[in-house]
Formats: sequence, C-alpha cells, structure tokens
Amino acid sequence: MGKGRLEAFSDGVLAIIITIMVLEMKAPHGADFSALRPLLPVFLSYLLSFVYLAIYWNNHHHLLHSIQQVSGGILWANLHLLFWLSLIPFTTAWMGENHFAAAPTALYGLVLFLAAISYMILQRTIIARQGRDSLLAAAIGRDVKGKLSLALYLIAIAATTIAPWIAWAIYIAVALIWLIPDRRIERTLAERNWQKQ
Amino acid sequence: MGKGRLEAFSDGVLAIIITIMVLEMKAPHGADFSALRPLLPVFLSYLLSFVYLAIYWNNHHHLLHSIQQVSGGILWANLHLLFWLSLIPFTTAWMGENHFAAAPTALYGLVLFLAAISYMILQRTIIARQGRDSLLAAAIGRDVKGKLSLALYLIAIAATTIAPWIAWAIYIAVALIWLIPDRRIERTLAERNWQKQ
Amino acid sequence: MGKGRLEAFSDGVLAIIITIMVLEMKAPHGADFSALRPLLPVFLSYLLSFVYLAIYWNNHHHLLHSIQQVSGGILWANLHLLFWLSLIPFTTAWMGENHFAAAPTALYGLVLFLAAISYMILQRTIIARQGRDSLLAAAIGRDVKGKLSLALYLIAIAATTIAPWIAWAIYIAVALIWLIPDRRIERTLAERNWQKQ
Amino acid sequence: MGKGRLEAFSDGVLAIIITIMVLEMKAPHGADFSALRPLLPVFLSYLLSFVYLAIYWNNHHHLLHSIQQVSGGILWANLHLLFWLSLIPFTTAWMGENHFAAAPTALYGLVLFLAAISYMILQRTIIARQGRDSLLAAAIGRDVKGKLSLALYLIAIAATTIAPWIAWAIYIAVALIWLIPDRRIERTLAERNWQKQ
Repeated sequence: MGKGRLEAFSDGVLAIIITIMVLEMKAPHGADFSALRPLLPVFLSYLLSFVYLAIYWNNHHHLLHSIQQVSGGILWANLHLLFWLSLIPFTTAWMGENHFAAAPTALYGLVLFLAAISYMILQRTIIARQGRDSLLAAAIGRDVKGKLSLALYLIAIAATTIAPWIAWAIYIAVALIWLIPDRRIERTLAERNWQKQ
Repeated sequence: MGKGRLEAFSDGVLAIIITIMVLEMKAPHGADFSALRPLLPVFLSYLLSFVYLAIYWNNHHHLLHSIQQVSGGILWANLHLLFWLSLIPFTTAWMGENHFAAAPTALYGLVLFLAAISYMILQRTIIARQGRDSLLAAAIGRDVKGKLSLALYLIAIAATTIAPWIAWAIYIAVALIWLIPDRRIERTLAERNWQKQ
Repeated sequence: MGKGRLEAFSDGVLAIIITIMVLEMKAPHGADFSALRPLLPVFLSYLLSFVYLAIYWNNHHHLLHSIQQVSGGILWANLHLLFWLSLIPFTTAWMGENHFAAAPTALYGLVLFLAAISYMILQRTIIARQGRDSLLAAAIGRDVKGKLSLALYLIAIAATTIAPWIAWAIYIAVALIWLIPDRRIERTLAERNWQKQ
Repeated sequence: MGKGRLEAFSDGVLAIIITIMVLEMKAPHGADFSALRPLLPVFLSYLLSFVYLAIYWNNHHHLLHSIQQVSGGILWANLHLLFWLSLIPFTTAWMGENHFAAAPTALYGLVLFLAAISYMILQRTIIARQGRDSLLAAAIGRDVKGKLSLALYLIAIAATTIAPWIAWAIYIAVALIWLIPDRRIERTLAERNWQKQ
C-alpha cells in the first residue's frame, strides 16, 4: 500500500483542525476596536496552537518522507496522533475564553503531552518496520528534543498550580525548540546518497 | 476514468466529518476541571465515532486499492456511503448531549447499520464490475465480519428498549472486531503476485 | 499549468460544502424520537442538496477529464461555479428551517439556476480553448439537459408563488434527470480512441 | 522534499477558509425575502473575501509552479501567509455584521495588508533559494502590483477615519488590479523554453 492517501488524509485533517480553530474567535457585537480587547487571549491561544499544529504538520511531512510502505500499524499510530491533535481546538477555546486560568492551561498542556507521546509511538512504529538500520532511526538518534519536550510539558502542567503564566512560557519555549527546522532526516538522507555514489 | 479523484474526494469528506465532530464539544463556561464533567459523555461519543470513521477510512482505503477503473455505479455507491457517514456527527452529538438515552443510542446504531449496508453495496458494485474471479471477491469471501456487524447493530438497536448500555457495549464490540486490521485483500494480492512469478 | 491543483481545490471546496451542510442539523434538546420530527424538513433539504452537490462533483469530474491544460479563464470560470455552489448550505438551511415556505424555496431555486449558468460558462470556456473540434464540444452537442434544467428552475421559481410543493417536485425531477450518469464524454472518448487504432 | 504536500496542504487550508466564511451567513428566522435584507452587507463582505481568497489561491498556484524543491524557509513562509489568510473569515464577519463601520473596515484592510506582506516574504524566500537568475525573479521584476497594493491598503486604513466607503472602494480596486491574470510567470517560462530550443 502506498503512502499517498495517508499523507492526503493527514493533510486534510490537519488543515481542518488548524482552520476551524478560528471559528472560535466569534466576531464581537461592538463596532469599535475596544470590542476586540476581550478577544486578545483567544487570539493569542489561536496563534500558539497554529504554531504547534504547523510544527506537527512540518515534522509529520519529514517523518513520512522516510517511508515507502504503509502498514496497518503505521495507519493506526497515525490516526492515534490525529485524535489527540483534533482535541487542540477544544483546549485552545477553553484556555482562550477563560483568560489562561489554571485548569484550562493544564488541560492544554496535557493534550500537547499526549500528542507528543502519540508522535513518538508513530516514530517507533515506522522504525520497527524499517529495521534498526533505518534512515529514520539514524536521523532521530536518541530523540533528545522529543524527550525534553515531554519533560517540559509535565513541568508546565505541574506549574499551573503555582502560576499559569509559567506553563505558558514553557509552551512557548517548546514551540521555539521545534521551530528550528529538523534537518536531521534531510542531512542523514544526503549523507547516504553521497556514500552510495 | 482514474480513481485518484474518487479517493481524494472521499478522503476530504471523511477528514471533514471526523474533524467537525469535535466542534460539538463546546468549551464549557467554568474554568475548573469540574466544568468538564458534563462533557464526558460527549467526549466518549466523539471517541467512539472517531474510531468508527477511522475504521471506515482504513477499509475504504483497502477497498479502492483493489480497483483500477471507476464506473458511474461505483461513484454513486461511494457517495451513498459518504451520505450515511456524514450523519454520524449529528447522531454523535444527539447521543452525547443526552447522556446515552435510549432513542439517541438507537438512532446512532441505525445510522451505523445503514452505513454498513451502503459499504456492502459499494463492495458488490466493485465486484460486479471486476467479475466473479476478482481479487476483491476472493479476499472478502463470504464476508462474515460484514454480516455479523449488521446482525449486531440490529440487536443493539432492539436492546436500547431494555437498557441503552447493552447497545453501547455492542457498538464497542463491533469496533473492536474491525480494529483488527483487515489483511485479507493484502494477503490475496501477495499470493497472486507470487503465483505470477 | 497542470489541472491537478484545480481538481484538488475543487474537490476540497465541494467536500467541505457537502459536509458543513450537516452542521445545520443541530441535535435537538429532547431525547426521544418525537424530538426529531421538527428536523424532518431540514433533513429532506439536506438530502436534496447532497444529491445536487454529488451530481455537480460527478459531472465536474467528467468535465475536467477532457482537458489537459488549465488557462486563467478556466480557473476563474471554475471559481465562479464554486461561489454559487458555496451558497447552497445557506439556502438549504433557510428552506429547511422554514418548512419549505415560498420565499426560501424560490431562493433555493435561484441559486441552483445561477450554479447551472456558471457550469455552462465553464463548459464554454473549456470548449473555446479546445477549439470547435474538441472532444467536449462533440460530447455535449446541443446540451439539451443543461438548457432544459435552466428552464425548469425558472418554472419552479415562478411556481413558488402558487404552491411551493410544485417547485420542490421540479427540483427533484431535475436531480433525477442528472442522476442518470452522463456517459456522453466517455462514449465520445471511446469512439475517438477506436478511430485512431 | 517535493512540493506536492505543500500544495495539497495549502489548497486544503484555502478551500476551508473560503468555505467556512459562508457559515457566518446564518439563515434568518423570517421566511420572506425582506428577512434577507439585514444579510446584504454580510453577503457583500463574503463576496469580496471570496474574490480575495480566490486571487491568493490563483497566484499561489503560479508562485509554487516555479519551484521544484521546498526548503524549511519556504514551508514556514507559506504557513505565515496561511495564518494571516485564516483571519479573513473573522474580519469578514466583523465587517459584515457591523454594516461596514469604521473600525471593522480598518481591521479588514490591516489583515489584507499583513497577508500581502507575508506573500511578498514567501516570494523573496523562493527567489533567495533559486538565485538572482531565477525564473520567478525575472517574472516578478520590480513587483509594481505588489507594492502598489500595500500602499493602497494603507491609504484605505487611514481613509476609514474619514469615511469607510472610501476604504471599501479601494479594496474593490485592488481586487480588480489582481483579477487581471498574472501572466508574467507563464510568459517568462514560455520565453525561456523558446530560447532553449
């Protein structure tokens, strides 16, 4: 089975998730700029979630680039990832509407944590099928970025009981870590091509 | 006519159906975790429907894998399937908001039953075009899983008059039957390739 | 410029239009079957619009099948068609919620009429680029079905002032005319392939 | 990395943005044509935004046509463009519901301005990767249309403090400037092909 439809379906779901979040930003009834002020936390939540979903789409792109064949296990690991990502519009809306209160901020982090776990499961499912010697295994190595993100999400969730803004700072920090493009797969691929020649 | 656009359109509709269901989970007004409790049945309904739609997407993928040419009959049998699947967000919302009351649980099963019927019609339309000797006909055989599911849906619908939780247990059981990946088509394809060599 | 992205974008828009219509069918507050009764006209409107959009997708599929190159004119003629089709969820909701009152039924027909006009413009734009001798021009001929539909829509709109059910009967009749698959393009294509051999 | 998924994802997001705007046109409660009158500004806002998004899709199509390889920089420049475009349904709804009041009309122009800036950044990112001698650089030249649009948006935003209708006239004028299909890339491509022969 080819990977074309898996990519197309994932792209479709991610495109819809990223876009329907904006539906939560309801047009205010007032017609002057002050009417926009209560929407500021909703907008900031949207911006953060947009960046997170863009990072997932970007890395998902690289991840599937390294595979040729799709197994049933990969299909379901991918759907599992899409499930947690599909909850982001809900947690974004709850956090934005409650102006970053503790509980919504913690739930936001929990869904990010579960999405990160499911991304790791997808990675391992692909590597398990490709073998220890696979391109992806070489490219990911010990996956420091992935494990660090998981730890930071847990710290952020705990920090919401002290002050929600700490959690928010951590979510932004994790996004920045990932915004640096993940060139590991591209680089490993380039090296191997060079060795073959 | 190629099957590329049929797959693309079906993927698009399925991706949208699976994603807009989450719009029914409205962010609660309270800002603590107890505000989430009334949403639990909505979340569980969403989870079940997500799994069902993922199974349909997965099997639809396998089904179309076995065809080369798309006829008018296949196009309409496919649209018929998409119609019933498009009603799942509605039945999911009604069942979730009414905490699994009898009537919404029965309607949920009825739409699953009609979707399963339309999936069978699509299978038969494809086989009719490919001929008795087709790959798909060999792979599906007597379609025990398909017929068993139909019977179970009918039992579940009847059971809602006694206790809705019986119906729910049956819906979960049917999902589990299908979660086991359907390797019949892949296996038959592999055998035939082997015989050709 | 290839036609791949034109097809992908059109499929995306049509898939979304056909799916978001179901969002207008809000889950009722009551938990028994009688609570569904007020939704019946909404459901019937949805069913009719689903069939119309499926016919458009189907014929759009055939129409683009006959072209290789996309010009700026074809791009805009296609977007013009998508604009009118995008209004169908609105007219469907207005007609369904008002139980097929005269004005919403007339507006529903007007949007169908304008979509049909824009489909004809798209056909002519394609033929103008392909030349008089084109496959599509031969396949469509005098386009009796297209012109008949336009006349029937106008009669239906006028009939809403007498009795809206006449308009509804006409909308169903036009859908049935088109449900018969349009094999003209396929047949002409097959004949030409035969002549070449 | 190929550009297929970048196009597919962008098409998906643009198709969703262009379609969900119509969800803001809620079906009115009255069942006669006079009930539609308050919706007229919402409809006109939708029409203008539909044309703008169609122009962006169209030009995005041409822009990506000129590239073979996608870099991380191009991916993020593209996501940046999609972010600003994703806010158009919000600004469209706010402007339509407030009957073109000054503040919503200014915000509408601001989002158009930021989308135009992000489109320019995407253009420059592509040219930077292709080199000074690139097809796109030759086709765009001094980008008079792009710079003129930016200036006109700023004038329109300033004009909302005098009379919002001036801003609206400018938005329509900019759309008309772009509706003239941008044949520069196609023409340059054709010339180069000719020179090679």
